[in-house]
Amino acid sequence: MVNIELPVIAINFKTYTQATGEKAVILARLCEKVAKEYGVSIVVAPQIPDLYRVVNAVDIPVFSQHMDAGEPGRFTGHVLGETLVENGVVGTLLNHSENRMQLADIEASVSKANSLGLYTIVCTNNPPVSVAAASVNPSAVAVEPPELIGSGISVSQSQPEIISGTVDMIRAVNKEVVILCGAGIGTGTDVEAAIKLGSQGVLLASAVAKSDKPEDVLKSLIEPIRK
Amino acid sequence: MVNIELPVIAINFKTYTQATGEKAVILARLCEKVAKEYGVSIVVAPQIPDLYRVVNAVDIPVFSQHMDAGEPGRFTGHVLGETLVENGVVGTLLNHSENRMQLADIEASVSKANSLGLYTIVCTNNPPVSVAAASVNPSAVAVEPPELIGSGISVSQSQPEIISGTVDMIRAVNKEVVILCGAGIGTGTDVEAAIKLGSQGVLLASAVAKSDKPEDVLKSLIEPIRK
Amino acid sequence: MVNIELPVIAINFKTYTQATGEKAVILARLCEKVAKEYGVSIVVAPQIPDLYRVVNAVDIPVFSQHMDAGEPGRFTGHVLGETLVENGVVGTLLNHSENRMQLADIEASVSKANSLGLYTIVCTNNPPVSVAAASVNPSAVAVEPPELIGSGISVSQSQPEIISGTVDMIRAVNKEVVILCGAGIGTGTDVEAAIKLGSQGVLLASAVAKSDKPEDVLKSLIEPIRK
Amino acid sequence: MVNIELPVIAINFKTYTQATGEKAVILARLCEKVAKEYGVSIVVAPQIPDLYRVVNAVDIPVFSQHMDAGEPGRFTGHVLGETLVENGVVGTLLNHSENRMQLADIEASVSKANSLGLYTIVCTNNPPVSVAAASVNPSAVAVEPPELIGSGISVSQSQPEIISGTVDMIRAVNKEVVILCGAGIGTGTDVEAAIKLGSQGVLLASAVAKSDKPEDVLKSLIEPIRK
Repeated sequence: MVNIELPVIAINFKTYTQATGEKAVILARLCEKVAKEYGVSIVVAPQIPDLYRVVNAVDIPVFSQHMDAGEPGRFTGHVLGETLVENGVVGTLLNHSENRMQLADIEASVSKANSLGLYTIVCTNNPPVSVAAASVNPSAVAVEPPELIGSGISVSQSQPEIISGTVDMIRAVNKEVVILCGAGIGTGTDVEAAIKLGSQGVLLASAVAKSDKPEDVLKSLIEPIRK
Repeated sequence: MVNIELPVIAINFKTYTQATGEKAVILARLCEKVAKEYGVSIVVAPQIPDLYRVVNAVDIPVFSQHMDAGEPGRFTGHVLGETLVENGVVGTLLNHSENRMQLADIEASVSKANSLGLYTIVCTNNPPVSVAAASVNPSAVAVEPPELIGSGISVSQSQPEIISGTVDMIRAVNKEVVILCGAGIGTGTDVEAAIKLGSQGVLLASAVAKSDKPEDVLKSLIEPIRK
Repeated sequence: MVNIELPVIAINFKTYTQATGEKAVILARLCEKVAKEYGVSIVVAPQIPDLYRVVNAVDIPVFSQHMDAGEPGRFTGHVLGETLVENGVVGTLLNHSENRMQLADIEASVSKANSLGLYTIVCTNNPPVSVAAASVNPSAVAVEPPELIGSGISVSQSQPEIISGTVDMIRAVNKEVVILCGAGIGTGTDVEAAIKLGSQGVLLASAVAKSDKPEDVLKSLIEPIRK
Repeated sequence: MVNIELPVIAINFKTYTQATGEKAVILARLCEKVAKEYGVSIVVAPQIPDLYRVVNAVDIPVFSQHMDAGEPGRFTGHVLGETLVENGVVGTLLNHSENRMQLADIEASVSKANSLGLYTIVCTNNPPVSVAAASVNPSAVAVEPPELIGSGISVSQSQPEIISGTVDMIRAVNKEVVILCGAGIGTGTDVEAAIKLGSQGVLLASAVAKSDKPEDVLKSLIEPIRK
C-alpha cells in the first residue's frame, strides 16, 4: 500500500467545472508543485473519468472519489478496485456524504481495497459513525459534519468537539487508523486547529477547487505543516 | 425501554403469506402461547402494515422489521420511530440483509430509537460489520451470513466461527450489547449450538413462518432454553 | 378495483405528528365527515403502521403512502400489495418525491397492484416523467414539482404550464389514466385552478395535516367541487 | 450528437477482467478493426476509469456504462455528463439492469445528455418499461430481460415476443427512438433474429468480453450486417 505521509492535505475535486478534464490535470499539477516545493503531503481525488489522465500527469498520490464493492464480472457502471489499480490509482474515498454507502458495502469495499493495496479514507458524519467506520479496518477515517461541507465555516474552529470526540472515541479502541477531518476547511488556521485537536490531516474541496487563486489557497493551507 | 429477557428467540415474519394479515395474528398468538407455557422469551416481527393488529392481539414484544431515520414531517412512506411507538411497537430490526441501510442511517435510526425507548436489533453479515454495528450503541446485534438465510443450513452448526468470531471481536470493545445470530436456524440443536458459542439468542424466519406445523417447530426451538 | 369518484382530493398524511397514530384516525374521520356531508370524493393516505387502525375507523378509501415491488417471501421490511389488501387498503401512492423508485420497480409495483385490484397513483415531477409513468398503466398519475411541495405556493397558480403540459402530453397517447396534480395546494382557489387546467383532482398534505383547523381547510378545498 | 449508424453492435465491457485497463484498449482496438474492415457500426462501453485511455486509442464511438443526473458542483463520486464530454466520450448507457436508476433520474440524465449532445441508450426489462423509457426522449432504448443477461440464451431466439412487443408498443407512440435489444446475444444468428424482429441493433457483453477469441465472436456477430 502507498505510504501517505502525515499530516496530509487531501483535495477532493468533486464535480467542480474548474477541476474537470484538462482543468483537473492543471489543478493536480499545481497541488504537486506546492507539495514538492514545500515538502508537504498532498493527495488529489479527481472525478473518476479523469483519473487516468491525472495519474499520468502528476507524481503525487491520486485517489478515486468512490469505489464499489463488487467483484470483476457483471457490474455495469460500477467502479472496481481492480480497475482503479490498473489505472494507477493508489487509494479511494468511500462513503462521502454526497455518496453514502451501506455498512456492508463499506466493509466489503475496504476489505477488497486492503487486499489490492489501495489506501482507503472512509468519510463519516459524527464520532459514533467514525468508530463504526474504523472497525472495518480502513487506512483512514475522515469525519465531516455534512451541514458544514462547502459552507466556508470550518469544523475545526466551529465544532472542535466533533474532531476531539472522534479522536477520543476511536483511540479508545483503535491505535492504528489515521484520523482526518473535513468540512469548511479553507485556511491554514483551520488546518492548524484541526491538527491541534488530534486530526492527522484534512479533507477539503471547494476552498481549492472553486478558487480563482488555488495556489494562494494551497499555500495558506500548508503553512502550518510546511517544512 | 422494554426488557427483553435472554436468551431470546426472535421470529421475523418477513412477507410470508402464512404470516400476513389475520395469519400474522394467529402466528403471533401461537408464539405467545409457547412463550408463556414454557417460560421462554419470544419476540415477533410482523410486516409493518400488520403491526397494529398484532400488537393488539398479543402480550409478547412486537418488533417492526425496519425503521427509517427521518424526523416527523416530510417523509412520505417512511417508517418513523414515533409512529411505531404510537402503535405499541417496542422495538425494531434494522439493516436486515433484505433491507440494507447506509451506515449513517443505521446510526441515526439507533440514536432515534434509543431516545424513544425502542429496542434495536441491527443485522450484520460478518464479525467486522458486527463490531461496526455495535459501535453505534444498539440494544443488540444479530450476525447472519446472507448466503445461509432461508437455506435450512444453520449458521451455528455450519459456520460456528462466524458466531464465536463476532462474540470475541465485539466483547473486546463492548461488554453491553446483546449478541444474537441467525441464518438457517430451524431446530433446538441449532439454538443450543448458537448459545454455546456465546450467542444470547437467535433470529429466524422461514423455519417457523413457512412451516405447516409452526407449534412443533417452536417447541423444538425452545427446548434447550425452556424452564 | 375500488371506484374513486372524480374529481378527487387525496390527502397524504406524510409523517406529520398531527396525523400519526390516534391522530391519524381523528384526521381521517374528519375527512370522512366532510366527504359525506358535502358529497365530495376524498381519499386518505396515512403512514403505513397506521393503515389498519384508519381502515377500521372510516368508510372512505384508505391508501398506502408506498408499496414495494416484491413477491411474498424474502422481503423483510418491504410493503407488499398482498399485505395491503389483507389490511383493507384499497390503493397506494407510488414514487412520491420523498420516496423515489426505480423505473423497473414502478412498473412491477403497478403491475402487481393491478393484479390485486389496488388503485395506484404514481407521483411524477414534470410532463415527460408523467408520460413515462402513464405508460406503465397505473390508475392515476399525480404531477408535483418537488420544489413546490410543502411550499404553500400552489402549482396550479404558479406553474400552470406543468399541469396543462402534463395533460396535453399524456392525453396525446393515453385517454384513460386519471391525471392529478399537487404541490403547494392549500385553498379552494388552488383546486379550482387545477381542475380548470385539466387535472381531475389534487394530492396534498401539509395544508391539511399541519393545520390547526383542518376542517376549515378541507371545507375551503372542496368548495369548488361540492355538490 | 454523434451519428450512430444502424444497425449497431454495442459492446458493454462490464467489469470483466479481460476488458479492464490496457486490456480494454486492446479489445476496443479489435472492435475498431472489425468495424472498419467489414463496414459495420460498433460502439464500445468500457468501465468509467478506462474511458479516457480507450477514447484516445480508437476511432469508433466510446460510451460510458453510466451517467448520473447531477449538475457540476457537489456530487462527489458521481459521473457527470460534462466530464464525459471533456474526456471525449460520445454517449452513455443508462439504467442497465446491474445499475438501475430512479425514473426521475433517468429523465434528468437523458435531458442533460441531450443538452450536451451525448447519445443515450436506456436499458429496460420489458415492453411497458421500454415505452416509458422512450417517453423521456433518449436516443435509444435497449430491452434486455434481466434473467437472460449473461445466460448464453439469446432473447431474440428464446423470447422473440419481448422484442416484437417492444417494437410494436414503442412505434405506436414514437417513430424516432432507436430500438435495440440484448441479453444472451452471442452469434450472428442471434443478431439476425433480433433484426428481423425490428430491433435496430444489439447490446451485448459476455460473449465478446469473456471470450478467448473475441475476434472470432465479433466476426460471427457482424456476419448478418456486414457490407
